[in-house]
Amino acid sequence: MSTPHSELPPVSSAARESALVKRLAGRGAEVASEPPSVWFMRQAGRSLPEYRKAREGTSMLESCLMPELVTEITLQPVRRHKVDAGIFFSDIMVPLKLAGIDVSIEPGTGPVLTHPIRSKADIDALPPVDDVYRAALEPIREAVRLTTHELDKKPLIGFCGAPFTVASYMVEGRPSRDHLRTRALMTAEPELWARLAQWVADISGEFLRAQVEAGASAVQLFDSWAGSLAEATYRAHVLPFSRAALDYVRDLDVPRIHFGVGTGHMLSAIHEAGATTVGLDHRTPIPTAIETLPAGTAVQGNLDPALLFSSEEARFAEAARIVREGRTAAGHVVNLGHGVPPETDPQVLTDLVAFIHEQ
Amino acid sequence: MSTPHSELPPVSSAARESALVKRLAGRGAEVASEPPSVWFMRQAGRSLPEYRKAREGTSMLESCLMPELVTEITLQPVRRHKVDAGIFFSDIMVPLKLAGIDVSIEPGTGPVLTHPIRSKADIDALPPVDDVYRAALEPIREAVRLTTHELDKKPLIGFCGAPFTVASYMVEGRPSRDHLRTRALMTAEPELWARLAQWVADISGEFLRAQVEAGASAVQLFDSWAGSLAEATYRAHVLPFSRAALDYVRDLDVPRIHFGVGTGHMLSAIHEAGATTVGLDHRTPIPTAIETLPAGTAVQGNLDPALLFSSEEARFAEAARIVREGRTAAGHVVNLGHGVPPETDPQVLTDLVAFIHEQ
Repeated sequence: MSTPHSELPPVSSAARESALVKRLAGRGAEVASEPPSVWFMRQAGRSLPEYRKAREGTSMLESCLMPELVTEITLQPVRRHKVDAGIFFSDIMVPLKLAGIDVSIEPGTGPVLTHPIRSKADIDALPPVDDVYRAALEPIREAVRLTTHELDKKPLIGFCGAPFTVASYMVEGRPSRDHLRTRALMTAEPELWARLAQWVADISGEFLRAQVEAGASAVQLFDSWAGSLAEATYRAHVLPFSRAALDYVRDLDVPRIHFGVGTGHMLSAIHEAGATTVGLDHRTPIPTAIETLPAGTAVQGNLDPALLFSSEEARFAEAARIVREGRTAAGHVVNLGHGVPPETDPQVLTDLVAFIHEQ
Repeated sequence: MSTPHSELPPVSSAARESALVKRLAGRGAEVASEPPSVWFMRQAGRSLPEYRKAREGTSMLESCLMPELVTEITLQPVRRHKVDAGIFFSDIMVPLKLAGIDVSIEPGTGPVLTHPIRSKADIDALPPVDDVYRAALEPIREAVRLTTHELDKKPLIGFCGAPFTVASYMVEGRPSRDHLRTRALMTAEPELWARLAQWVADISGEFLRAQVEAGASAVQLFDSWAGSLAEATYRAHVLPFSRAALDYVRDLDVPRIHFGVGTGHMLSAIHEAGATTVGLDHRTPIPTAIETLPAGTAVQGNLDPALLFSSEEARFAEAARIVREGRTAAGHVVNLGHGVPPETDPQVLTDLVAFIHEQ
């Protein structure tokens, strides 16, 4: 693959006008007669043997900065499962890495920071979000250009971790079940927290903008841990920074999906952070979400990943129900309620996509 | 301590008529002028140096079957923090162990079963819940008798894991973040699941009943993972079995607390499982819970454990708010929204109890 990526033609308007993108934008009525749209969070990843082969010998964060490899991995599930979009292969730690933070993904553990953020001095020492950072995003732009070219008429969804989740890793230094230090910092030192969260919002916003400018047709902001917060805490200490990140792409006219696990108690707040589309986990009934969110909001989700390990009968029954319920939304894109578990049988996903497309 | 425990006098009526127990029973109006009642989930445990010393060289499950040690550990936080109740020191795996299941608690990992439940044959092979099991509960009865004697006028809250959480461990074989196998079993083989869950309900119900008959003044059923379920799944596959467990103590006239993390999306169902008192995690605002639950229901909770690591100012402000909001419930007992983290400074808890008692 020796294409000079930066000279590739711009993304096809077919991708931006696809049924999936229209649905994410809340324009589902325009494509009501088309088959349901579906993709899966973490569809590109360890459940696929071709992924494990492609990644062999390359660390996670290295992989994310190799444009040809990112393209190959992003395309694998599109080719195999016939899903309606690619999700840009990346990791929530990539913007940190590109900003010069010393972070690695330890297999079996997850993200580990050499210097966790514990003090004002640590926050003072964060690198500026400037032209140097924007230049460092070039491998991301290259990967997006190449991927959107290969996807042709199918859209690419841009990927980014949200400020709270990313900042949690920075404060805790490694995966944490409870994020106690992070939640303690918010309440004990709200101004320090705000500076950290704004910094993450800036690197995240630039990261998203680079993807959209290079050809992504939508973006998803993943706030994996937002559900651990009470709504009042979320609104006071998190929402403004998720909004700041999404504001970086607001003028680019692409749907903005916002997803967090266990956020059923504060769906309106998740929407108010600047989403066109609210991602639902398996615990939030689609009718409840439609009723809670303002008219015109699209929803995405929310098949329980556990059903990938259940009987086909149970799985298809739930998928059919989700498609049916989704038809009453301004727009609905089928997805899981969380990422594809690594131990998933890929054939189960392929068959599920075919079933959903027949509905 | 060589008291012949089985000959101890019955539990004092003072404990059963304490403000805490009345509040748990929804009779808060009778004790409105008394100081707020408070205890902490996992108050007996690793946050206390005297606990670490007492437990030295004894495995978790062994400890739970040594009546004098259980009494000492249960009393430690009552002595130190002046909380208004003891929580019976035990582990959700103890009933399994007493029923003859090969289970151990691996330090740093958690409960591990030698033979996870994976098939009909595994379920067929579960031991009966009979007189042999009831006789095996004798160390529990002994520990409760001794503890309630030592607690004197303060109540002891009985402890038990709920069928879903315990059965999850049995199916997964070890701690699991997503409980995928368990949720898959429920939907793929609902009848097998029901047999397993009913078996756990029976050992749990007997375990609770033994504690109340020996002197506990209330019980708490911990369904740690229930919040991972959609409400429809909970109602179909879990609620009947939690109710079956709580039914074992329904005629004994003690308050029944039911708690799960992240259950804000299905509080009514948690109540309908047979609770007099719904335990709230830090994400569920007390006013929302009061509005959602039937009149007369008591609530317990829900200070964010992260505040134990924040400033005293932030912690006390939240505690005062929780006490204030709780006054509008039929009964309210202050607690954390989850267990005491092991790294908590014990003095923070002691000071917090004093502050709450002054409100």
